[in-house]
Amino acid sequence: MRFSVGCEIGYDVAESATLIFNIEAMHGGRQRVLSETLTITPKIAADEKTSEESGNRYLRLTAPKGLVQLRYAAEIELDPLHQAPAKLDEVPIATLPLETLPFLNPSRYCPSDQLARFATRQFGSIEPGFGRVVEICNWINAEVDYLSGTSDTTTTAADTFSLRAGVCRDFAHLGITFCRALGIPARFVSCYAWQLEPQDFHAVFEAYLGDRWYLFDPTRMAALDGMVRIGCGRDAADTAFATIYGQVLPQPIKVWSEAIDGDKNEEWTTDAVSVVRE
Amino acid sequence: MRFSVGCEIGYDVAESATLIFNIEAMHGGRQRVLSETLTITPKIAADEKTSEESGNRYLRLTAPKGLVQLRYAAEIELDPLHQAPAKLDEVPIATLPLETLPFLNPSRYCPSDQLARFATRQFGSIEPGFGRVVEICNWINAEVDYLSGTSDTTTTAADTFSLRAGVCRDFAHLGITFCRALGIPARFVSCYAWQLEPQDFHAVFEAYLGDRWYLFDPTRMAALDGMVRIGCGRDAADTAFATIYGQVLPQPIKVWSEAIDGDKNEEWTTDAVSVVRE
Amino acid sequence: MRFSVGCEIGYDVAESATLIFNIEAMHGGRQRVLSETLTITPKIAADEKTSEESGNRYLRLTAPKGLVQLRYAAEIELDPLHQAPAKLDEVPIATLPLETLPFLNPSRYCPSDQLARFATRQFGSIEPGFGRVVEICNWINAEVDYLSGTSDTTTTAADTFSLRAGVCRDFAHLGITFCRALGIPARFVSCYAWQLEPQDFHAVFEAYLGDRWYLFDPTRMAALDGMVRIGCGRDAADTAFATIYGQVLPQPIKVWSEAIDGDKNEEWTTDAVSVVRE
Amino acid sequence: MRFSVGCEIGYDVAESATLIFNIEAMHGGRQRVLSETLTITPKIAADEKTSEESGNRYLRLTAPKGLVQLRYAAEIELDPLHQAPAKLDEVPIATLPLETLPFLNPSRYCPSDQLARFATRQFGSIEPGFGRVVEICNWINAEVDYLSGTSDTTTTAADTFSLRAGVCRDFAHLGITFCRALGIPARFVSCYAWQLEPQDFHAVFEAYLGDRWYLFDPTRMAALDGMVRIGCGRDAADTAFATIYGQVLPQPIKVWSEAIDGDKNEEWTTDAVSVVRE
Repeated sequence: MRFSVGCEIGYDVAESATLIFNIEAMHGGRQRVLSETLTITPKIAADEKTSEESGNRYLRLTAPKGLVQLRYAAEIELDPLHQAPAKLDEVPIATLPLETLPFLNPSRYCPSDQLARFATRQFGSIEPGFGRVVEICNWINAEVDYLSGTSDTTTTAADTFSLRAGVCRDFAHLGITFCRALGIPARFVSCYAWQLEPQDFHAVFEAYLGDRWYLFDPTRMAALDGMVRIGCGRDAADTAFATIYGQVLPQPIKVWSEAIDGDKNEEWTTDAVSVVRE
Repeated sequence: MRFSVGCEIGYDVAESATLIFNIEAMHGGRQRVLSETLTITPKIAADEKTSEESGNRYLRLTAPKGLVQLRYAAEIELDPLHQAPAKLDEVPIATLPLETLPFLNPSRYCPSDQLARFATRQFGSIEPGFGRVVEICNWINAEVDYLSGTSDTTTTAADTFSLRAGVCRDFAHLGITFCRALGIPARFVSCYAWQLEPQDFHAVFEAYLGDRWYLFDPTRMAALDGMVRIGCGRDAADTAFATIYGQVLPQPIKVWSEAIDGDKNEEWTTDAVSVVRE
Repeated sequence: MRFSVGCEIGYDVAESATLIFNIEAMHGGRQRVLSETLTITPKIAADEKTSEESGNRYLRLTAPKGLVQLRYAAEIELDPLHQAPAKLDEVPIATLPLETLPFLNPSRYCPSDQLARFATRQFGSIEPGFGRVVEICNWINAEVDYLSGTSDTTTTAADTFSLRAGVCRDFAHLGITFCRALGIPARFVSCYAWQLEPQDFHAVFEAYLGDRWYLFDPTRMAALDGMVRIGCGRDAADTAFATIYGQVLPQPIKVWSEAIDGDKNEEWTTDAVSVVRE
Repeated sequence: MRFSVGCEIGYDVAESATLIFNIEAMHGGRQRVLSETLTITPKIAADEKTSEESGNRYLRLTAPKGLVQLRYAAEIELDPLHQAPAKLDEVPIATLPLETLPFLNPSRYCPSDQLARFATRQFGSIEPGFGRVVEICNWINAEVDYLSGTSDTTTTAADTFSLRAGVCRDFAHLGITFCRALGIPARFVSCYAWQLEPQDFHAVFEAYLGDRWYLFDPTRMAALDGMVRIGCGRDAADTAFATIYGQVLPQPIKVWSEAIDGDKNEEWTTDAVSVVRE
């Protein structure tokens, strides 16, 4: 299925600022960038690089005083792997690929050490596998209110667990935290999300099951097979769409994600969905 | 019913230290101190005073270098009010006695503001009254592990809520926190507790229902009508059995609480139990 | 010196709400309420009571759906005790009045246990007395930015210590916390503050020195002898100007404090200033 | 200079446990492993792998019930780069290698976002470069007490900042946090440390200056050019010497680090010292 995604971002720079963006769709796996355009106004030379480790594409530029605007638009082909949930087992620590181990460690927003006892009490006796991660998502969806303005950039999953309110980023952090506490590698994914209302950058997570990473969205606000992956990392600290060094005034953001050839009314899949292996 | 309670406490003082104790049984209400002896070794003049506000009895002394030991022994008559649970309603904020209002405020170890959303989600739809506080205690007893060494003097109810482990003091803090979040005045009570195994100072809480304060013990480790009240306050910060200013080495503590005329094998009451009105 | 103080507060009540206000000037000590008027619109019966313990005056009312407005205006005579700073000693724990001891305990927003080591390192070797508390205020004024929007109702003094930003309430909490950590009883005071710009409810603190409570304002935004005390307690949790049970939409607040006969251009006193003894 | 380093670690396994070790000296850069032996008792097949990203060497094994013991011994040649401090500049964000950017992000134990204002206030006006990181280390050394038992595995740099006490790991976390807050990439390094008393695994940090990573040790407990690097990552969460899945009873650990040909009495270098470029 093909999607047209993109965003418009702008900043009013006070003096001079270095900005690092992570807004471009990832290459590779079952996500193909058919075409894309990036416009920076005014024309500023930008340093572009893809992280070998994560696949995240970074765009770095130093903007002078005044307005700087980015427009990114891409056409993406998504052909995610659909797997029957019943077939997906958790992988014993003893045989997990080494590369997945850092995603068992606690991170800034996912202090899995602090919620380990709860995770074990609540989810420890559920049969391991894809279904257990679905149960984690169900729990989050049922027990946490989706509510703007209740969290900020310092909010951890332990805070969200107590507060019982948050937004997509907090939901993802909580899911990651529970997974790690149970020995399931889990990582944060930022994406363009088809059918998300209202349109914005979205945050979900991936858990390592069977032999690859599968997508999960505890908010249930978008279809798993309509997510165009942008950034991937330990938590939101690794995948900010913009990191700013200098004084700027952010302008309103516009984000879009449209199906070019899809049927908007189809039911959302309940399959296990994976876009990348590593 | 009559109880023989007491404790032996000692400190090896490095230089000189001021110590404030709150170990004596309270006077008043349905708790009568029939007799008591307090021995301080060596003989040091102690400043004794009862707080008008809380009824807590404080003993303050300045000890020189060396060992200082206290032995407190008392015979107490307890005649707690037993009430049928069904008769006890919560009191609307609009008619609560002014004196109970501070016990709705968050305190050091009971940050009721932080757990308000959870309290409302979990207990908000339960019918108000004594039964709702019992449900709170049931939840704590079921969802938190009683486990020494998991908490310390900085542990708040929000920490305990995340960690899901603690001791009597943490259980009481969590109960108080949920009550306050629901608009029920609640306060911390330290006591001698008959049948508590092993014997130690115990911590429970009181909630204001109907026209007085009723005892609750989420640990379910002792009978409510065998508790001899020592200290009462916002939380454990107000009711330390010893507060020490200076360098000391604590000696092993001995605490006891025996029924003089009681039947040890009786079943613990499920009545609402109150010792004091205010 | 005489002051005209007051406020206008309003709420749009969704259904029905119980509101508890603490906006009236305290009686007693060197603060005399010459006259005062309180208008509630619409006319709603209000329950008025003064706390014996704190002297705080509470006004409780249950408002129906719709707008409820309060207007409080008072004429106050302030005759604060001015004392030479050099004469004011800290009081040893061994001889502190019992009533002051709760103000050594950590509270919701003043976790003095958490900042004890820093307080001792930074202020421990300063000569005890009034001057030491002044040094604490100087430190706060120099090391913390006064900045709206950096803190909220969950912010503790430990948070402010790390963040290095806050408003009057945070400044007061930090001062209280350091004092308690050093063994100096300290409490939170809300007040009308002459010459405060812009006018609003102000927050300062009192420390117990010599034989009474002295005012301190780490923000240095108003004169100590122009403060009309409203509420007094362990911290901001005890002195909210409004506590609301029910759904309401707050209206803009207006607060004023004018000198009736004072000389606006006088230099602010550097004396030790006390309004109440207990 | 050549060093003989190693450790003996043991666990009594209750049932069966998977253990992941990171105790072997890293290969590469100016650190050469001349020889090494690893003995596992009983003989258990171990899965060995080196992370491409960090260079950390992981050893994974699944041990049956009973005692499992590891003995690692190696002879290491260290030829660290010594650089004159004055020559080392900080690198503008605009030209930092992409690979260093994740080390600007906050992590589990290094919440650089929370201490940003303090870092800027305290260190912001110091001339950028090697000397500024030295000033950070000086500050930590002067303002934080090195004290066992004051921190645990949940302690963050923000906690240490408030508590003003910790051990080597906490000192390193605080140094990393301040660097990141100032825009200097910084990462955690575990090592064998010559002349450390008493011998144990040591924790220090690296900051990226000029064109490579330089070592810093705010504890000042060992010489920078006598540190044999073991693990490297965002913070202690990435570099645990042992991660255990299963129930085990740890046995006493033995760690050693001896100079084979060095002069123990030489003064510690004040040069900038670097072992690896990336």
